[in-house]
Amino acid sequence: MIEAAQTLDGWYVLHDFRAMNWTMWKQMDEDFRKEATDEFIAFLAELNKADEAKTGSHAFYSIVGQKADFVLMTLRETMEELNEIETKFAKLTIADFTIPTYSYVSVVELSNYLAKAKAGDEPAQDPYQNEHVRARLYPELPRWEHICFYPMDKRREKGANWYMLEMDARQAMMRSHGMIGRSYAGKVKQIISGSIGFDDHEWGVTLFANDVLQFKKLIYEMRFDEVSARYADFGEFFVGNILNEEKLRNLLAL
Amino acid sequence: MIEAAQTLDGWYVLHDFRAMNWTMWKQMDEDFRKEATDEFIAFLAELNKADEAKTGSHAFYSIVGQKADFVLMTLRETMEELNEIETKFAKLTIADFTIPTYSYVSVVELSNYLAKAKAGDEPAQDPYQNEHVRARLYPELPRWEHICFYPMDKRREKGANWYMLEMDARQAMMRSHGMIGRSYAGKVKQIISGSIGFDDHEWGVTLFANDVLQFKKLIYEMRFDEVSARYADFGEFFVGNILNEEKLRNLLAL
Amino acid sequence: MIEAAQTLDGWYVLHDFRAMNWTMWKQMDEDFRKEATDEFIAFLAELNKADEAKTGSHAFYSIVGQKADFVLMTLRETMEELNEIETKFAKLTIADFTIPTYSYVSVVELSNYLAKAKAGDEPAQDPYQNEHVRARLYPELPRWEHICFYPMDKRREKGANWYMLEMDARQAMMRSHGMIGRSYAGKVKQIISGSIGFDDHEWGVTLFANDVLQFKKLIYEMRFDEVSARYADFGEFFVGNILNEEKLRNLLAL
Amino acid sequence: MIEAAQTLDGWYVLHDFRAMNWTMWKQMDEDFRKEATDEFIAFLAELNKADEAKTGSHAFYSIVGQKADFVLMTLRETMEELNEIETKFAKLTIADFTIPTYSYVSVVELSNYLAKAKAGDEPAQDPYQNEHVRARLYPELPRWEHICFYPMDKRREKGANWYMLEMDARQAMMRSHGMIGRSYAGKVKQIISGSIGFDDHEWGVTLFANDVLQFKKLIYEMRFDEVSARYADFGEFFVGNILNEEKLRNLLAL
Amino acid sequence: MIEAAQTLDGWYVLHDFRAMNWTMWKQMDEDFRKEATDEFIAFLAELNKADEAKTGSHAFYSIVGQKADFVLMTLRETMEELNEIETKFAKLTIADFTIPTYSYVSVVELSNYLAKAKAGDEPAQDPYQNEHVRARLYPELPRWEHICFYPMDKRREKGANWYMLEMDARQAMMRSHGMIGRSYAGKVKQIISGSIGFDDHEWGVTLFANDVLQFKKLIYEMRFDEVSARYADFGEFFVGNILNEEKLRNLLAL
Repeated sequence: MIEAAQTLDGWYVLHDFRAMNWTMWKQMDEDFRKEATDEFIAFLAELNKADEAKTGSHAFYSIVGQKADFVLMTLRETMEELNEIETKFAKLTIADFTIPTYSYVSVVELSNYLAKAKAGDEPAQDPYQNEHVRARLYPELPRWEHICFYPMDKRREKGANWYMLEMDARQAMMRSHGMIGRSYAGKVKQIISGSIGFDDHEWGVTLFANDVLQFKKLIYEMRFDEVSARYADFGEFFVGNILNEEKLRNLLAL
Repeated sequence: MIEAAQTLDGWYVLHDFRAMNWTMWKQMDEDFRKEATDEFIAFLAELNKADEAKTGSHAFYSIVGQKADFVLMTLRETMEELNEIETKFAKLTIADFTIPTYSYVSVVELSNYLAKAKAGDEPAQDPYQNEHVRARLYPELPRWEHICFYPMDKRREKGANWYMLEMDARQAMMRSHGMIGRSYAGKVKQIISGSIGFDDHEWGVTLFANDVLQFKKLIYEMRFDEVSARYADFGEFFVGNILNEEKLRNLLAL
Repeated sequence: MIEAAQTLDGWYVLHDFRAMNWTMWKQMDEDFRKEATDEFIAFLAELNKADEAKTGSHAFYSIVGQKADFVLMTLRETMEELNEIETKFAKLTIADFTIPTYSYVSVVELSNYLAKAKAGDEPAQDPYQNEHVRARLYPELPRWEHICFYPMDKRREKGANWYMLEMDARQAMMRSHGMIGRSYAGKVKQIISGSIGFDDHEWGVTLFANDVLQFKKLIYEMRFDEVSARYADFGEFFVGNILNEEKLRNLLAL
Repeated sequence: MIEAAQTLDGWYVLHDFRAMNWTMWKQMDEDFRKEATDEFIAFLAELNKADEAKTGSHAFYSIVGQKADFVLMTLRETMEELNEIETKFAKLTIADFTIPTYSYVSVVELSNYLAKAKAGDEPAQDPYQNEHVRARLYPELPRWEHICFYPMDKRREKGANWYMLEMDARQAMMRSHGMIGRSYAGKVKQIISGSIGFDDHEWGVTLFANDVLQFKKLIYEMRFDEVSARYADFGEFFVGNILNEEKLRNLLAL
Repeated sequence: MIEAAQTLDGWYVLHDFRAMNWTMWKQMDEDFRKEATDEFIAFLAELNKADEAKTGSHAFYSIVGQKADFVLMTLRETMEELNEIETKFAKLTIADFTIPTYSYVSVVELSNYLAKAKAGDEPAQDPYQNEHVRARLYPELPRWEHICFYPMDKRREKGANWYMLEMDARQAMMRSHGMIGRSYAGKVKQIISGSIGFDDHEWGVTLFANDVLQFKKLIYEMRFDEVSARYADFGEFFVGNILNEEKLRNLLAL
């Protein structure tokens, strides 16, 4: 019997990608657009209260290309809260001028492949009480310039079946993989979220960077690592730029 | 000649996933929305009569993310009744404000892989008269906090062809699989329905839990089990939160 | 050089699946709907004249789930007649309230894998004059309670290439396959139609039954047969219930 | 280094498949429809001038099933002319009542797999001056009753990689393939066009026949030929009936 | 540990493919269309300023077939600028009459597979200061008659896993590949852009030629080269003709 990895699970995550229906938006008069924009910005400010209270976090970025105009990524303590945020957004005026293009449901996850890295830890401690673990399970999303998101799976094919490998083999590969990630510390912040049972792929990967090129460098380097080269299947990729109030106002201004 | 598993078949099942057309809904005035909501709630109450009469069952949940706003899962004695429920829903006012996004047709199923587990059973008994069997074929769906649905297939590939395995090998794997399921007793309730000839995959899996994380834990653990690791192909995954009258009224209120 | 199977070909077949645009239909007043329904029923009655004249046949069923609201299956002597029926339907008022969701073009087909089964046949006879053959090539579609349709292909993969097998091997497998089909005689009526060059898969399979569960039982049993287990790839599956005038009037009534 | 086949390339080809928006078309009054139909017929007559001048050719057929209502196939000396025809069509009134459903861009192609078949040819001759070659590169499309179109690729898989085979092996298989084609001479006319760099598959195949069943017979027979059985991947298939002015008027008449 | 190729990265690239909504466009009066066309042409002239200042480049071509009516390809120093161009376009009047059909986000890339080709280079030089390298990373797009675009991946399959090959093996194959490309010098100009982390495939390939047939010849020849034959997976292909102001005015004129 193959031993499954143990996971620690933190906040639930919703990525919500939307394109603007510009044709309809342009038909509205300036007052209407001003009001809808103000309401949208108030909604985002409301979201930010959870960030401040450390009961959640969110990120808001534009997306380059036709896949979407923006993504709202929210982290909360329960699936119900994510659902409420969705519904609240749907009831905003701006929502009538957006087209849903993609979404992803997951939960921030740490696996025990990497857990034993720090030798000095007392084994008996509840990991959910460990400050370093908590910082990763309940992350404060950075306000860096760029976001990158993609979902992924581990392969279950003849000759490349991740789930038929022994724990040791998986652990060795994941550690080598983690080494590459760590070499980008300070350049790329990485949030891994698990989505088995929640969405169509097994994991979601969200990256943040101030230099957008670091996304390509990191993922390209990892692709030569056995765990990616042999076992990874990737879904769609999204890349974007940070939106703050001023940038959002500019985006929506005609 | 490979021996096929024997199945016991219970109620027919329809999963009907729908997104709200919020833009149109918001254009309606409050009286209109109130009336449409009342009519929808009356329809759901009507469905519930079958639950009470034990001639069927149903579940009604919101869905997280853009895949749908809600799912209505109905179990009935005949395919014709499922069709009638669909048509009845289509004729409701609320239906004009929904967009169909996914559906699945199947029948609750027990296979003989697990059937002989209880040694004391008299072999001659009609299994459809067995109280435990009946409870599983004609299940009363729980009112637990969360739902998870996904369709799946068994692979027929070179080196991993489920349908070319001998009965013994399949039975051993299915029992090991069932053991994992049983270890989640009380935490996850599982309804397996067969859909060969009825829909695009071979089975539908519907899970209920009060702790949504248990879906991920159960499916992740099973993925390391040979029957999943080597032989399972999965379709789309949906996850959601229970809707009762109050929550539905809140969802539809502006 | 691999010997191709010889086929006998009968009537051309069109499956036309359509969903109702209920929102638009409900906006029409009762007189309009009555007239459109009457016109639709007159069109179906017109189709039935070919059934009576034995120059064609047709079946009309509802479909369960969101894939369609109904399917019209027509069999005719020429591809042109199928095209005319399509166009005639498109010009009906009811057509404006339907959304095309799937269609399939094929021709009823008998292959010589099974042809020599009856030893007493005179070899010199023109098979198209044989009464049993004609009954299968130009079938009178039954008015049974349920329909099931799916398209399929034979695989051409390394290690499972149907088209690289010798005639003898294919014939032996097809006969074993036919045995399963025959064991459902009286329960499931099966129409095989060839679609190479006409549509995206190689064959269409249309099944009729009074007990809808027999579709699942038959196809599941066949799946363990080598010709399905190793060589079959399946497309979408559709299942439905018979529609007669009364049921159609009920379906369209508000 | 594997030797690539040499190709001779003739006219550029555009297949443009369109469905009618019948609901909108029916809302127009008879005068409007008459005018739009006349304009469409004048456009087709204009196209025919290239056929007469032998500077191009075209075919116009209905399509059976929901994939399209008709296909316009045009052959011209340059890619720019194909673009102009597209744009001209888009500006016709009838275009507003059509929905684009599929298109394919390619160039008529002869490969040297078959080129050396005629032993008596002087090797030094410019093949583009050879009358038989020219007739195939710049074909006058027949006005036969039926059309069949499908795109295809040659596989590049482990154990079945067409592009890793030596020229001799490819040539032998293509000749055997050509023999089947030739046995349908007079029954099926075949236009092969190359689309590498122009569209999503590597080749387009357009067949014409007076007996539509010959498409199925030819392609089915070829499927047992090694080059198809092992190396071919097929895209969508389209089949239709010839449209002349009278038939087009009937199609568009209400 | 497999050594990853080093890349030099230049301008960020956005390909934006759009179809015209002709039905809506035709409903506008001539003055409106004239104004919208003028505004569009002014926008393109504005883009050209970056070409002149050598801070970016752009290409504007029609697309043959239904995949799009035109493509705007823009190269800029930052991802933010690409986003601004998108938004600016969305706010043009003409944008309301276009339908987004495909887009691709990437960055011009040179890999070290080919870097050491010139033996006389001083090793210590910053490659970004090398004039030849700069000309390739920050290319002035040519105004040639035709464009071809397609995205692609390198395979990671059992028996054909590019990312598990040693650097030497990859380098030898890429050089042989480059030789074919170089034999088309003067006929085909090739821009390779990397898109790992930015879009769904690993690379985008944009080709320019005055003779459209050279696209097919080049890609067909390369397909027999091991790096394509065994390791390449291709996405969609787009081909088109150059648009200048006059041609654009003709395209949009009714």
